[in-house]
Amino acid sequence: MNVVFQTQRRVEFRDTDAAGIVHFSVFFNYMEEAEHAFLRERGLSVFAHDAEGPLSWPRVSAHCDYISPARFEDVLEIALEIARLGSKSATYRFKFSIAGRPVASGVVTSVCCRLDPDGTMRSIPIPDLIRERLSSPRTS
Amino acid sequence: MNVVFQTQRRVEFRDTDAAGIVHFSVFFNYMEEAEHAFLRERGLSVFAHDAEGPLSWPRVSAHCDYISPARFEDVLEIALEIARLGSKSATYRFKFSIAGRPVASGVVTSVCCRLDPDGTMRSIPIPDLIRERLSSPRTS
Amino acid sequence: MNVVFQTQRRVEFRDTDAAGIVHFSVFFNYMEEAEHAFLRERGLSVFAHDAEGPLSWPRVSAHCDYISPARFEDVLEIALEIARLGSKSATYRFKFSIAGRPVASGVVTSVCCRLDPDGTMRSIPIPDLIRERLSSPRTS
Amino acid sequence: MNVVFQTQRRVEFRDTDAAGIVHFSVFFNYMEEAEHAFLRERGLSVFAHDAEGPLSWPRVSAHCDYISPARFEDVLEIALEIARLGSKSATYRFKFSIAGRPVASGVVTSVCCRLDPDGTMRSIPIPDLIRERLSSPRTS
Repeated sequence: MNVVFQTQRRVEFRDTDAAGIVHFSVFFNYMEEAEHAFLRERGLSVFAHDAEGPLSWPRVSAHCDYISPARFEDVLEIALEIARLGSKSATYRFKFSIAGRPVASGVVTSVCCRLDPDGTMRSIPIPDLIRERLSSPRTS
Repeated sequence: MNVVFQTQRRVEFRDTDAAGIVHFSVFFNYMEEAEHAFLRERGLSVFAHDAEGPLSWPRVSAHCDYISPARFEDVLEIALEIARLGSKSATYRFKFSIAGRPVASGVVTSVCCRLDPDGTMRSIPIPDLIRERLSSPRTS
Repeated sequence: MNVVFQTQRRVEFRDTDAAGIVHFSVFFNYMEEAEHAFLRERGLSVFAHDAEGPLSWPRVSAHCDYISPARFEDVLEIALEIARLGSKSATYRFKFSIAGRPVASGVVTSVCCRLDPDGTMRSIPIPDLIRERLSSPRTS
Repeated sequence: MNVVFQTQRRVEFRDTDAAGIVHFSVFFNYMEEAEHAFLRERGLSVFAHDAEGPLSWPRVSAHCDYISPARFEDVLEIALEIARLGSKSATYRFKFSIAGRPVASGVVTSVCCRLDPDGTMRSIPIPDLIRERLSSPRTS
């Protein structure tokens, strides 16, 4: 795995369910938080604006494999790699672990879209500036 | 309590936490769902439009008292009354129960706002049409 | 698709995000709600008990493909099929649509587990009674 | 306000709704996160154990007043004070601000409970050790 970003996330009480573990849907929120933290580190945002107007990155697909449970107040280590940078889309892969124990792995694919004034979204080639920032090696 | 609307809500698994009961924050979502169902019944929506543009109802305050726990797959009965209809605001009161056992009671106050084109919100007197629909006695 | 259960879900305000559409993670909650409603219809629950003690169905994997957006107060039609009933696991497939327009499709795989008294989970063959109820043709 | 703990919370995308602002219910999750971070700083947890068994702190009431909106990626500053430490309950007050602008204020009251082996909760006087840790002046 070619990790370009790492972060941590403590499990909050609201993230758990009556089985005493993190609800499976919550890992998708954790993936999004890690993705957005990565984008901020690169000077980007999921709500970007360039000379031609606003851009957004709606999701095309999301996947998660669950390996072992996470519980309240566990600290998840989250590693992010860019699995694929297509002409119009980006695919992120995530690995979750707790103190070295694998917990889950996930993949999210988003497509770069222009938000037209009437509210519709239209896929476009990823602008060069964004592509450069996403694909540069880790600086920190 | 002058109940003007009643609805039911089954507790979903995601609504519970590791203590095995509905998380306290989730009752605010249930209140909002009941409020919106009431508005739909009256032919209204929290996102209304009139001749002067869009209207919305941001919250001013929210309160909940917790009496007894609710668990996965319990069916909550929710009663709604309009506690106060001010010139610019509406206050809803909610009672939650399960098969007659009191579970919680809550109060939410919202203010009627005009959404200006630049995204700011400005409180306005509740338009007559909306006031009439909110204050008419229960028809069903 | 061999649909064995169908249900509807209105999009609540809390399910949307600042892009004005249902957040991608919420579809996993909708899938779970539909799965649990299907289990109830078959006289089952994700928290079952048999003579040997409690059973649960932790998730092994979850996937969703997003086709078109869903917005506040849209009514999603959700179709469920059992894509695979293995010796120890069940795979559900879901199709989401709004008035005939495809919105999303998803797959969730769960494994049948015995909850041991010390809190650990141990995968077991799906008990015969549960297997029969899951695999019988739709009755309603 | 006698602030005993301060923390920050960045607004995540999932916390927003279609009005483009943090959903009102999410402030209760933020309050709980701040409370739990405070308890950890004092060497405590909402799931404590002492010689007599497990303790928990179910909520009795929760309240929030909303002053101005918070948006995606805003960094909320959260100040916590102990408004009241009763014989069996604790009341926390929270102030939310963004770069000095007041955003919201909230109050949550919890009651100290013994979790009996059969799953029921029974309110008890706050144990001395916990009371000391809660009421000591800020050390950091």
